[in-house]
Amino acid sequence: MTDLNKMVETLIAGDRRVLARAITLVESSREDHRKSAVALISLLEKKSQKQAIRIGLSGTPGVGKSTFIEVFGSFLTDCGLSVAVLAVDPSSARSGGSILGDKTRMTLLARNPAAFIRPSPSQTHLGGVARRTRETVAICEAAGFDVILIETVGVGQSETIVSEICDIFTLLLAPAGGDELQGVKRGIMELADLILINKADGDLKDQATRTCADYSGALRLLRKRAQDPEGFPKAMTISALEKDGISDAWKVISDLVSWRQESGHFELNRSEQSKFWLHEDIRYQLLSILDKDPIKTDLLEIAEEVASGKKNLALAANEILKEISIKKGELG
Amino acid sequence: MTDLNKMVETLIAGDRRVLARAITLVESSREDHRKSAVALISLLEKKSQKQAIRIGLSGTPGVGKSTFIEVFGSFLTDCGLSVAVLAVDPSSARSGGSILGDKTRMTLLARNPAAFIRPSPSQTHLGGVARRTRETVAICEAAGFDVILIETVGVGQSETIVSEICDIFTLLLAPAGGDELQGVKRGIMELADLILINKADGDLKDQATRTCADYSGALRLLRKRAQDPEGFPKAMTISALEKDGISDAWKVISDLVSWRQESGHFELNRSEQSKFWLHEDIRYQLLSILDKDPIKTDLLEIAEEVASGKKNLALAANEILKEISIKKGELG
Repeated sequence: MTDLNKMVETLIAGDRRVLARAITLVESSREDHRKSAVALISLLEKKSQKQAIRIGLSGTPGVGKSTFIEVFGSFLTDCGLSVAVLAVDPSSARSGGSILGDKTRMTLLARNPAAFIRPSPSQTHLGGVARRTRETVAICEAAGFDVILIETVGVGQSETIVSEICDIFTLLLAPAGGDELQGVKRGIMELADLILINKADGDLKDQATRTCADYSGALRLLRKRAQDPEGFPKAMTISALEKDGISDAWKVISDLVSWRQESGHFELNRSEQSKFWLHEDIRYQLLSILDKDPIKTDLLEIAEEVASGKKNLALAANEILKEISIKKGELG
Repeated sequence: MTDLNKMVETLIAGDRRVLARAITLVESSREDHRKSAVALISLLEKKSQKQAIRIGLSGTPGVGKSTFIEVFGSFLTDCGLSVAVLAVDPSSARSGGSILGDKTRMTLLARNPAAFIRPSPSQTHLGGVARRTRETVAICEAAGFDVILIETVGVGQSETIVSEICDIFTLLLAPAGGDELQGVKRGIMELADLILINKADGDLKDQATRTCADYSGALRLLRKRAQDPEGFPKAMTISALEKDGISDAWKVISDLVSWRQESGHFELNRSEQSKFWLHEDIRYQLLSILDKDPIKTDLLEIAEEVASGKKNLALAANEILKEISIKKGELG
């Protein structure tokens, strides 16, 4: 525990080497590391009162996400703010190489002393990715960062995870022709506080303006949320390449944050997120007993029988449920 | 079991009184009723090969849902098809009176011998509502109905439930002015196969056409799904009042059904739905131990401590998880 206390002190003092070590601890699946990680975060929460602005950023490959983060991150550090960039990529376990990828695709920011980039670790379970990201955010917040950018690639449910961790959710899109399918995953548009149409430069400028109008229209068709002031969610054009609209985007984000802080929605959202993750963590760990043999194998087999109509659903469910047993203290 | 065998025979023969009794059995929470219900459905599945077209219909109050169901249902029975109308309304437990409501708001269809209307029972748990609706659909399908309309009011997660039960999901909307918020719940548009803009009559006709164009545009911005032929999801105008566009809507629906049947997506979707519900049922019943005291009360208390920042999330989760115990055979 003395070790942890020291770690907390140097972390809050801004030591980047300790920050990286703390995150590695959080990412570890070893049981003793896990215990230390929980203790560390619990200590950090007691010691640090600092609140960062947590911005979620989603966008499919090709929309210019790396360029945007480089330019947006550098803009923020020029304003005197410190920035941490985290990635949520449940697919990196399969594709591999994202650790090298992250640092080489944001070379400017990687060398910037006011910025910190942490790539996504290889993890297959979404529950694990969620916990790791949440805890890394907590550590970066305690370490004093002003802005935490949480980037995701638009695979599966990673957007939902990010939206339940961040204060502001941003969607980055490329300009598209009038009738062209933009490929926005169903369900992502609804999470966005701000849609940024990138590449509003050169030949694509007009197209970006039209795409922006399309999304503004689509956003108006959705129900207004309590945590939104007039005019939100909003769509706007930017050009990361020409550094155009970057300060405007930051103004929109910080205005929205101020509005939510004053109206109480900012704190309310964080409280709701904490409750959500408490329930999710408990559910996730309770449900994890379904992933263990012999139940896992039985469930796979019985699911095929139900799908093909050979077995009744309710009877099949009962067969599996009857097998389950948990001893007090076994979980947790 | 002899009783159940007789019930199955008369049910498949088309006895409406027995149909109503079977549904009541499925809705009961008494343990012996539950056992009979499971046995009944298992028997029905073995005896009946009939497949209905299951159409989900969502729309907020005021869009003309009752009028549409009356007119659409009557159109189908005029075509020689039998129709069952089921309602999914998790809120009816609170608002009350929906049992009377359903039959009085669709007086024509209620007297139609080729139609069967079953209002939503009072149930608070979404898991219960989902199971009851799924099983009622199975019974109606075995009873030989050609089309099953599953109506929902757009409260909470009821649309997700309906979309995982039906073959085609339809969203009914009213015309809206250009900039007016339509109040479509985020996440519902993404479920729709077909958006029907109702009230395309009289003064509202032009407005309905414009609203339809808006939604067509918004739908084009979403990613194409494998189970959709060219041009889907689709938006179109109708007038339930003037019985305009009703046969067109049916043509669009039955063409989509044919396309999916021929491409294999229809069966694939049903298989996936079965698997989904098997896992959901098992998860729901496993997680239900969190709703029992003392865990329930402890969880409520600890969630407030986490929300206010008094307690660390991971430590709180572990405290709850350590309490959990399940004996083999206790569930199911």
